[in-house]
Amino acid sequence: MRYVLLVAYDGTHFCGWQVQNNGRTVQAELERALSRLVGKVRVTASGRTDAGVHAAGQVCHFDAESTIPPERLADGVNPYLPPDVKVLKSAAAREGFDANRTAKRKTYVYRLYFARRDDPLKERYAVRVGETLDFSRMEEAASMLEGEHDFKAFCASGSSVRTTVRTIYRIGFRRAELFEMRVTGNGFLYNMVRTIAGELVAVGAGRLTLSDLKYALETGDRSKVGKTMPAKGLTLESVDYGFQIFSE
Amino acid sequence: MRYVLLVAYDGTHFCGWQVQNNGRTVQAELERALSRLVGKVRVTASGRTDAGVHAAGQVCHFDAESTIPPERLADGVNPYLPPDVKVLKSAAAREGFDANRTAKRKTYVYRLYFARRDDPLKERYAVRVGETLDFSRMEEAASMLEGEHDFKAFCASGSSVRTTVRTIYRIGFRRAELFEMRVTGNGFLYNMVRTIAGELVAVGAGRLTLSDLKYALETGDRSKVGKTMPAKGLTLESVDYGFQIFSE
Repeated sequence: MRYVLLVAYDGTHFCGWQVQNNGRTVQAELERALSRLVGKVRVTASGRTDAGVHAAGQVCHFDAESTIPPERLADGVNPYLPPDVKVLKSAAAREGFDANRTAKRKTYVYRLYFARRDDPLKERYAVRVGETLDFSRMEEAASMLEGEHDFKAFCASGSSVRTTVRTIYRIGFRRAELFEMRVTGNGFLYNMVRTIAGELVAVGAGRLTLSDLKYALETGDRSKVGKTMPAKGLTLESVDYGFQIFSE
Repeated sequence: MRYVLLVAYDGTHFCGWQVQNNGRTVQAELERALSRLVGKVRVTASGRTDAGVHAAGQVCHFDAESTIPPERLADGVNPYLPPDVKVLKSAAAREGFDANRTAKRKTYVYRLYFARRDDPLKERYAVRVGETLDFSRMEEAASMLEGEHDFKAFCASGSSVRTTVRTIYRIGFRRAELFEMRVTGNGFLYNMVRTIAGELVAVGAGRLTLSDLKYALETGDRSKVGKTMPAKGLTLESVDYGFQIFSE
């Protein structure tokens, strides 16, 4: 049977999602904990997250022969997991479901706060911006990035993907306790959300113009674009498969 | 000269505010860092916070002979402080100011979240409640606690204070990303805010009635009241001295 899990983690003390020889990873913690219940399994996520990136709604699957009712698995495995990664929901996957290959849209949130000095209560999940930002210019830049584009200039160099064309359905801003930039797309290149966050901040601060951004988008030239923002401000919020995975 | 500081800290890894022989404290970290700039000083806060309690706006003062401009002190001391405690603002105290004795009102926020299972991204600054709460009954209970009362039943036993009469100006609820209970009063007894939080949750869950609460308030009998909630959900939000301390 294929099980599907909704997983949340605080990325601060993880070297990212994927199992590696050195360093603590979310995948390794999950596989270790699940092995206590259903034996050795390999867990597949909707996609990797980098070191320090958080997840409020990562989705993953694994295959196992087990008599544990799918909905009960979350409560069964959580006692074996450390406090910084927990299974929020579990279910039986529907026919043909693959957490990675059938994912349709992903939503990430990048969090900022505006202050002259570091605030210990905000530093864990957000990044401080000391500059004054022009939000209406950021809105303009965000709409320029929405839609289908070649995001070649917006990913870390050296990524080996078939195509760098992606569709961003929406980039929205929300001023809550922290300032949130919410991005929904059909997929993201390596470091793409963190690069976009850096560019929108640079546009807001007046260090990058809308035409610089347009130029990067049209030519794929990364030289003028802003810096990649720190991992800790980024959270994988949700993954959409086009149907409701969990009944509860 | 008397300096006044606005200090924020993440209480997770502190054994509270006050210097003690064993265990890391906020006061000790501040005094150690300040000694690098102005020599040995004693720092006085608006009041102690317990182990695990956070502060977004603790106010404290110290006396020192120094040529450092008061407004610059924050940037001067922060490099000597660990990431979990920082000075947000600094200024010269006005005549007669005492962070502890002249404080007029304090505001605390207690944060909850409602979920069936622990969420690693919420656990650091909030407490999970698995029960369904009746918010209108909680509002009723909160108004019952507002005003001047003898809060004897609402403090940890064994506190040696002159009087257990305090005034709560306002208890308000706000449903943001986390559920917030905000309490403003002229002072709080030991564990009083955490006890009130526990009782309001108990009222919301139907485990405590409004008349139980009224009985506790009138008689000082602690036997029927709810449990004291964990420290990590509590944040000292601000301290009000009746005038603006910091010009910036």
